[in-house]
Amino acid sequence: MKIIVDAMGGDNAPKAPVLGAIQANQEYGVDIILVGRGEEILKVMEESGIKDLPAGVEIAHASEVVEMCDNPATAFREKKDSSLTQGLNLLKNGEGDAFVSAGSTGALLAGATLVVKRIKGIRRAALAPVVPTGNGGAVLIDCGANAECPPEYLLQFAYMGSYYAEHVLGRPEPKVGLLNIGAEPSKGTSLQTTVYPMLEEASKAGRINFVGNVEAREAVEGAVDVIVSDGYSGNIFLKTMEGTGLFLAREMKRMFKKNLATKLAALLVSGGLKEFKKIMSSDEVGGTALLGISRPVIKAHGSSDAYAIKNAVRQARQCVSSGIVDNISANVDVMRLEAPAVHGEE
Amino acid sequence: MKIIVDAMGGDNAPKAPVLGAIQANQEYGVDIILVGRGEEILKVMEESGIKDLPAGVEIAHASEVVEMCDNPATAFREKKDSSLTQGLNLLKNGEGDAFVSAGSTGALLAGATLVVKRIKGIRRAALAPVVPTGNGGAVLIDCGANAECPPEYLLQFAYMGSYYAEHVLGRPEPKVGLLNIGAEPSKGTSLQTTVYPMLEEASKAGRINFVGNVEAREAVEGAVDVIVSDGYSGNIFLKTMEGTGLFLAREMKRMFKKNLATKLAALLVSGGLKEFKKIMSSDEVGGTALLGISRPVIKAHGSSDAYAIKNAVRQARQCVSSGIVDNISANVDVMRLEAPAVHGEE
Repeated sequence: MKIIVDAMGGDNAPKAPVLGAIQANQEYGVDIILVGRGEEILKVMEESGIKDLPAGVEIAHASEVVEMCDNPATAFREKKDSSLTQGLNLLKNGEGDAFVSAGSTGALLAGATLVVKRIKGIRRAALAPVVPTGNGGAVLIDCGANAECPPEYLLQFAYMGSYYAEHVLGRPEPKVGLLNIGAEPSKGTSLQTTVYPMLEEASKAGRINFVGNVEAREAVEGAVDVIVSDGYSGNIFLKTMEGTGLFLAREMKRMFKKNLATKLAALLVSGGLKEFKKIMSSDEVGGTALLGISRPVIKAHGSSDAYAIKNAVRQARQCVSSGIVDNISANVDVMRLEAPAVHGEE
Repeated sequence: MKIIVDAMGGDNAPKAPVLGAIQANQEYGVDIILVGRGEEILKVMEESGIKDLPAGVEIAHASEVVEMCDNPATAFREKKDSSLTQGLNLLKNGEGDAFVSAGSTGALLAGATLVVKRIKGIRRAALAPVVPTGNGGAVLIDCGANAECPPEYLLQFAYMGSYYAEHVLGRPEPKVGLLNIGAEPSKGTSLQTTVYPMLEEASKAGRINFVGNVEAREAVEGAVDVIVSDGYSGNIFLKTMEGTGLFLAREMKRMFKKNLATKLAALLVSGGLKEFKKIMSSDEVGGTALLGISRPVIKAHGSSDAYAIKNAVRQARQCVSSGIVDNISANVDVMRLEAPAVHGEE
């Protein structure tokens, strides 16, 4: 298996992606293609005392870098020799099995959709992070790729999220919940009330395990494995979790820094504090899967360090070996509202 | 000033509302009407060693109780002699200045809208809790009364939230933000992109202080005083905060209960832990204002204890003395999209 890694993407590039990818190569035995400016990649290695390219690690030179200020919708086209575009081209041409990037989410999404293409029949690719919850994490789909969604998108998100939870996270019969403001099928906006019976039908047919509406609070507490949402609300959910976590972490820090006694207390629970930090950290998960693309693409957090990149490569490896793309492709007919076109065209 | 308190509403009724209202009477010097089953109210007082009705506290007997299983839309009509309906009638007839209830949110909202009525020109009443944020709390409007909202509702929510933040919370020139998934005016669904220029115009005219879109994370961190949202997304925001707070509180508890050393640590930071708990507690705020109703109505949390009810009465008193209802009424013409009717009809 060969994972393509964007060496130039993210706040800590090229150091974090280069070192993280090499660690993943050592630890998981996956082959790596580092895409980016060859000289900068080699410099990072040299500075870290890595004299030769490890076996199974190669460099694909790309002279440009997509910056955060570039237009996400067109960056991949305007910077044809960027690590992002070249990485996606390698993926498309089958020279690697998955692509990992900590670069601009918007540019990656647009590039993946237009270079690698969506799975035939899938209306929109979705961002599907694993968010920290009381049941050890849940797939949130979508978390911002599609602000406005017709019902069919959510139907497809439910299937894709369910496959991901089952095959990548290893949850048998994952519980799929529709993010909503009450338990009754009549709750929510017209989007939720329209989607609810569709998911119910899919559940009755035994295709997914739809457990009904899930309120945000119960979703955080761990009531479901998959949280189905339009991108706008999913983003509100995700960012509220992050914000609340940060807010409370800061308050906790203040509490422990008050005086000598509280500083001693911090020492006494230091192991627990590390655990605590780990729960809320996106570094552990690695990254967010772009589901619906015809080959696995993982968006690592922009602030990823080498450890987070290593975990994102691990996640990419799981996506490849799980066969999630084939799984979605094979079932796409039941994920569409209209009958598929007779001659197989879209 | 006289505050009407629903003695039968909430999980801890009649004890919590009765004792909380009496405490508020003692502490803030406000007169109280306790609405509910007279004998039960007197029994609570007797059990708590209160022999006579304190000066300024009276009882208005109502024989029925709205239960959580009653249909919220019709309960106030079906149970005409309920504490909720009778309390709203007293408010409507001017026998008290504000109404506080810890009963069913839906029944209170429907009852307040149809008995007390909305302020003329206000399209929908909104639930406006003060949520704990990095800047000492922000008004979230709406948090679930109106799942689906046309742009005009959000325009009105922005004004009402701004008046509330200024006059009840005492924030001069409160910063009003539109809850969104990015800073640019083009972000979000068609609802946000339509509302954005409306709020910008209101801001240019000096009527509100609109600071643009606010992402959920920044909203939690305290970037604004007023978070404007449709009820669906506002509810997702609120419940995600609650869920994350509970989730982390549980993890923290587990951390402190691990062994003797961590238990000692808990003792060392016990003061801080109490502070910490206070930040996240809805009891401190008291309740959620129903804005847009022609007289002040406060929904206290269903699980309110006497302390929370006392705070809700304090909040009701602030609403009355701030003149928020008059403030909204006086400015309603600029809060409407269409020109007001010539003869003053709706």
